[in-house]
Amino acid sequence: MTFIERCRTAWRQQDSLLCVGLDPELSRLPTALKGRGTSLDQVREFCIGVIQATAAHACAFKPQIAHFAALGAESVLAEVCAYIKRHHPQHVLILDSKRGDIGSTAQHYASEAFDRYLADAVTLNPYMGTDSLQPFLDRAHKGIFVLCRTSNPGGDEFQMQVLASGERLFEKVAATAQQKWNAKGQAGLVVGATYPSEIARVRALAPDLPLLVPGIGAQGGDLEATVAAGLTDSQAPAGLFINSSRAILYASAGEDWQQAAQQEAHRTRLAIAQAARQRPSA
Amino acid sequence: MTFIERCRTAWRQQDSLLCVGLDPELSRLPTALKGRGTSLDQVREFCIGVIQATAAHACAFKPQIAHFAALGAESVLAEVCAYIKRHHPQHVLILDSKRGDIGSTAQHYASEAFDRYLADAVTLNPYMGTDSLQPFLDRAHKGIFVLCRTSNPGGDEFQMQVLASGERLFEKVAATAQQKWNAKGQAGLVVGATYPSEIARVRALAPDLPLLVPGIGAQGGDLEATVAAGLTDSQAPAGLFINSSRAILYASAGEDWQQAAQQEAHRTRLAIAQAARQRPSA
Repeated sequence: MTFIERCRTAWRQQDSLLCVGLDPELSRLPTALKGRGTSLDQVREFCIGVIQATAAHACAFKPQIAHFAALGAESVLAEVCAYIKRHHPQHVLILDSKRGDIGSTAQHYASEAFDRYLADAVTLNPYMGTDSLQPFLDRAHKGIFVLCRTSNPGGDEFQMQVLASGERLFEKVAATAQQKWNAKGQAGLVVGATYPSEIARVRALAPDLPLLVPGIGAQGGDLEATVAAGLTDSQAPAGLFINSSRAILYASAGEDWQQAAQQEAHRTRLAIAQAARQRPSA
Repeated sequence: MTFIERCRTAWRQQDSLLCVGLDPELSRLPTALKGRGTSLDQVREFCIGVIQATAAHACAFKPQIAHFAALGAESVLAEVCAYIKRHHPQHVLILDSKRGDIGSTAQHYASEAFDRYLADAVTLNPYMGTDSLQPFLDRAHKGIFVLCRTSNPGGDEFQMQVLASGERLFEKVAATAQQKWNAKGQAGLVVGATYPSEIARVRALAPDLPLLVPGIGAQGGDLEATVAAGLTDSQAPAGLFINSSRAILYASAGEDWQQAAQQEAHRTRLAIAQAARQRPSA
């Protein structure tokens, strides 16, 4: 199965476009977990508790590696990823690490993502060009989500630069992904939910590519406009991984943290489904 | 002491512009180390052996984090960094991780680089803009080396794009670093040795910034042209960290691996010094 086929299976079987981001922060863990074992034990229990609570509503999980690295918790990340692969093999496991380096080093980053953490896909930075992505594309059946138009305010600074060709830089990245990196159904793009008109532009340039969309929830992106702009098929919603991290993870710090995470995931999944049904072009 | 003052002190006290890159590869370790303890023990012994052999000829060390991450050897990287800080506090410790993410996540990457690995500086990717760099700049006395013009063939793909303003993208990055990111002497740039004319262009746009230059040695960059283009002061050579990794690390796989690394570091340092003396404008 190619990576894009794997995505389509996850969207269809889970009937969901929701990706749950795993960004553990020690200071925000539920009160009930604090004091139980070491801080690494707490992070493990928290992540696995969130996965258990939200899996039924999600099609993907996206651990963000910096949150584990700052705690020296790579071993916990490896356990969490192994847990996802074992218990939820139908979910797409996206390692959010935004790597980018030259060929020989990129091979080591590919090994980190795919061998150590068993990820199905990894987020990558395009600045160093195609040969920095190649070692990831050389792994058959694995996917890459390349940063295209990011949801932060500073994303404008370089991504919105107009090139001599008339394209903006993020448009050049989107077109390159469609034309050059997707020969084997492996390429996707990261496009922030805070710019729906630019999601529409990316969708026009990259009609087949899965889009990973952060910025819903805590970052305040417009869910309806995002879904309308990014869907690939209005009959059976597909084409998008709509990520929510903090709004789900930290829905409650009380005893009901798992229930609250489940409710927020359910609510977000339904909101996405409703936006898909109301899509103007449908 | 600001970061740039720290760089100048290292260049002057060590009388060297050589940065030794630490890119351990299990398959290339000296024969004498193989079979001794675990693979992590071998990587630790190799890195510390190279540091001991080359410190006298270098002004900086640059561990490349992917080489440790692919082995699950973060703990070894932390030990190697702590060893450098304890035994060679005058050397600049550059963590080569090419990170880049939005503010909240970037704070965790800053913690990874500066708290966990005690780095003086870290390599970063500019694609996500100024706010992705800010959490690193918020650490007073720490430095950032931002990818500008990289030495790999695919570096052309986006970095050489001509913008509507007439600048190329890498020139925009260089100018932004000088004007916006260097208010407190914290900014540097990564510019590959394979493009000396572009190093000269970067030096013109960023007259004060330290340049981290990979691509000497195994990658075949032109040392004389690089030094001529990048130096900031022909009386007391400064302004450059000329990196060599594989040519030094793997100078010999035999019993003489430390001696061979020392000789190659010495040879490279002298070649840099000679290139500085012969610089056309001097």
